[in-house]
Amino acid sequence: MIYIAVLGYGVVGSGVVEVVRKNASSIAQRAGEEIAVKKILDIRDFPDSPDRELLTKNADEVFRDESIKVVAETIGGIGIAYQFTKTALSLGKHVITSNKELVATHGPELLKMAAENNVHYLFEASVGGGIPIIRPLHNCLAANEITHITGILNGTTNYILTQMRRAGKDFNTALKEAQANGYAEADPTADIEGHDACRKIAILSSIAYNEYVDYKKIPTEGISKITLEDMRYAEKMESVIKLVGRSMKVGDKIHATVSPAIIQKSHPLANVDDVFNAIVVRGDAIGDVMFYGRGAGKLPTASAVVADIIEVVKHKNNSGRNVWNINTEENMVDPESVKTRYFVRVKVRNTEEAEKLIKKVFGSVDWINSINEGKKEELAFVTSIDTEVNQKEKVEQLKGTGSIKEVISFINVL
Amino acid sequence: MIYIAVLGYGVVGSGVVEVVRKNASSIAQRAGEEIAVKKILDIRDFPDSPDRELLTKNADEVFRDESIKVVAETIGGIGIAYQFTKTALSLGKHVITSNKELVATHGPELLKMAAENNVHYLFEASVGGGIPIIRPLHNCLAANEITHITGILNGTTNYILTQMRRAGKDFNTALKEAQANGYAEADPTADIEGHDACRKIAILSSIAYNEYVDYKKIPTEGISKITLEDMRYAEKMESVIKLVGRSMKVGDKIHATVSPAIIQKSHPLANVDDVFNAIVVRGDAIGDVMFYGRGAGKLPTASAVVADIIEVVKHKNNSGRNVWNINTEENMVDPESVKTRYFVRVKVRNTEEAEKLIKKVFGSVDWINSINEGKKEELAFVTSIDTEVNQKEKVEQLKGTGSIKEVISFINVL
Repeated sequence: MIYIAVLGYGVVGSGVVEVVRKNASSIAQRAGEEIAVKKILDIRDFPDSPDRELLTKNADEVFRDESIKVVAETIGGIGIAYQFTKTALSLGKHVITSNKELVATHGPELLKMAAENNVHYLFEASVGGGIPIIRPLHNCLAANEITHITGILNGTTNYILTQMRRAGKDFNTALKEAQANGYAEADPTADIEGHDACRKIAILSSIAYNEYVDYKKIPTEGISKITLEDMRYAEKMESVIKLVGRSMKVGDKIHATVSPAIIQKSHPLANVDDVFNAIVVRGDAIGDVMFYGRGAGKLPTASAVVADIIEVVKHKNNSGRNVWNINTEENMVDPESVKTRYFVRVKVRNTEEAEKLIKKVFGSVDWINSINEGKKEELAFVTSIDTEVNQKEKVEQLKGTGSIKEVISFINVL
Repeated sequence: MIYIAVLGYGVVGSGVVEVVRKNASSIAQRAGEEIAVKKILDIRDFPDSPDRELLTKNADEVFRDESIKVVAETIGGIGIAYQFTKTALSLGKHVITSNKELVATHGPELLKMAAENNVHYLFEASVGGGIPIIRPLHNCLAANEITHITGILNGTTNYILTQMRRAGKDFNTALKEAQANGYAEADPTADIEGHDACRKIAILSSIAYNEYVDYKKIPTEGISKITLEDMRYAEKMESVIKLVGRSMKVGDKIHATVSPAIIQKSHPLANVDDVFNAIVVRGDAIGDVMFYGRGAGKLPTASAVVADIIEVVKHKNNSGRNVWNINTEENMVDPESVKTRYFVRVKVRNTEEAEKLIKKVFGSVDWINSINEGKKEELAFVTSIDTEVNQKEKVEQLKGTGSIKEVISFINVL
């Protein structure tokens, strides 16, 4: 029998307790030993919970109990969760977490601490909810040099974008609906501004490229500027707009970004709708593989936590020794130097002159037919490929000219 | 340094040698030890191979060499591969294979032998080429009770069906093209008649449901009867036709089949085209997750073999102890008792009478508009749900009647 403790009895934590109880016998078969929750730590009261006998507010009851070998940290954030994780690891307890913020921020330190104490620090649930992605990246694709990761990593924004595209709702309406359905939090900033996706692509990249990728160095743009008009242009381009987290190897450096992107409908990510997430990984031997599923939710995320617990039980005397080396040199490519194409939409005063100006500034472009048939006040085009810094400079040259009133949209094309 | 031997220097075997050599340093980092190929066993001559120094025709050079701890069996078939695998396991060597036929046929015996000798017998490459599916099913989804597996498991047939649908080529033309492109073998029977997919769904099911599923008990139907007309009807139904391997838990028994199926375009499998494979797994906690990628090919398959080798090296003193229990009672549901819907297409002599007869026999059906506008010699419909045995009996009642000339198609609707 292996005893575990759950820190934080919120959505994921209570899901962990539920899955461990419900699937106890098949879990025991797969782990080779029975697994039971001995303590649940939370400062709140849950008088009506079926787990009230296990609940405690006293952290010592978890940490001083030597029979508890595995701790599932489902508190979130980088405050008390960080302290508890360090305490548990230093006491030789394995730690499993769903806390992407903590892994993205203190991953190198915590993994090092785990290795020094010969225990595991595992975080399958921190990216993609229940979708198996961390372990496949680590183990199943281990024979590959991974060169690209491209993912829809945030269910909230994907739900909003899907509602906009399918039901023609504008951003604010779709956001409110997402909040009403429990898919977006009261303060939705972390989701809609891309911060959540940013931490996730940082974690995936750190594993794929064998060195720590600091999320603070990843240029991140959210979806709040995306309009229904942009979506209709994307439709004309046989494409959809998604919030995409990307990273790739460029020589021995790494390039990573989070931004809205226009994706061809034939791309496997284009069909990933609603709250689903998907991650495409490219390796030199395997080509593209995609992992798809529910990126959030109580039971999917809990099942990823429990899978990590089973893994620890199976290999409890054989810790992974995974560390994220921190590169002493700058390991990120200057994002401004990376070449890309953009979709640009401008409001014009004089169509002919504006077209001339755009050709002069951008050279050859692909014009997209206006979504407002007949009306000529708008021009839309896709630039040829160039560095981001050059693209931005060119856009600046369009602003405040006689023929162009306003640059309305400037969106990455994948 | 860990020494391995490769048995069989064909497409996959030579790929294994290539991947081990090419990505040696990152493989060493992930495995925690360097890995080198010491011997390659093949009865053929390869005088110009870069690996000729390693090649031998003498099996003793592999089996008597105690420094060789891991053997990659990429011979295929259930003849000499079976003998060599038993020899290697009995000598305490770990065995990795891409041989689905051998795993599906002798899996229970070989896994038991591996457990008795405290070594691993791993076969990630046997299903889905390079797509990580066996280990995720085993480990990452371990917290779930898996209830359904649905997959496009054969790249050859998926390529043929994609060519039929997209380019309007008929089955025979598409098959010849697949052979010319190296996607189908000279004798394509195992692929087009579904035998290959059958072995794969048997392996996946054995893992998911924790007991051996005998592929010989899985009703299997290939794609050779599918016509362009069927595809056009599917298109009218906002669907596509795919060769699908399926299994599910029905109470404590298992139902599995391989057959062509009509799938709604909104289903994630509908967009899996060309030689790609994808597997959707449903678990009670996680919901649906999908794994997608190249289901075959030299380097993708080799990378799966090498990932298993890395896994063995990481856990070489801790064999998986996975066994497939053989249920002493019949563990398969009578397939005839499983309920499903069918697409039926008939040639008629008298439309009105035929419609009446169909309603009388099948009750309520969904009529599909004819693809031959105006012409009335054909009727197409989707039945309501009923057991397979009943559906077949009903179809029999249509045959040889005055109003119906011929039953042209009878295809599962997913």
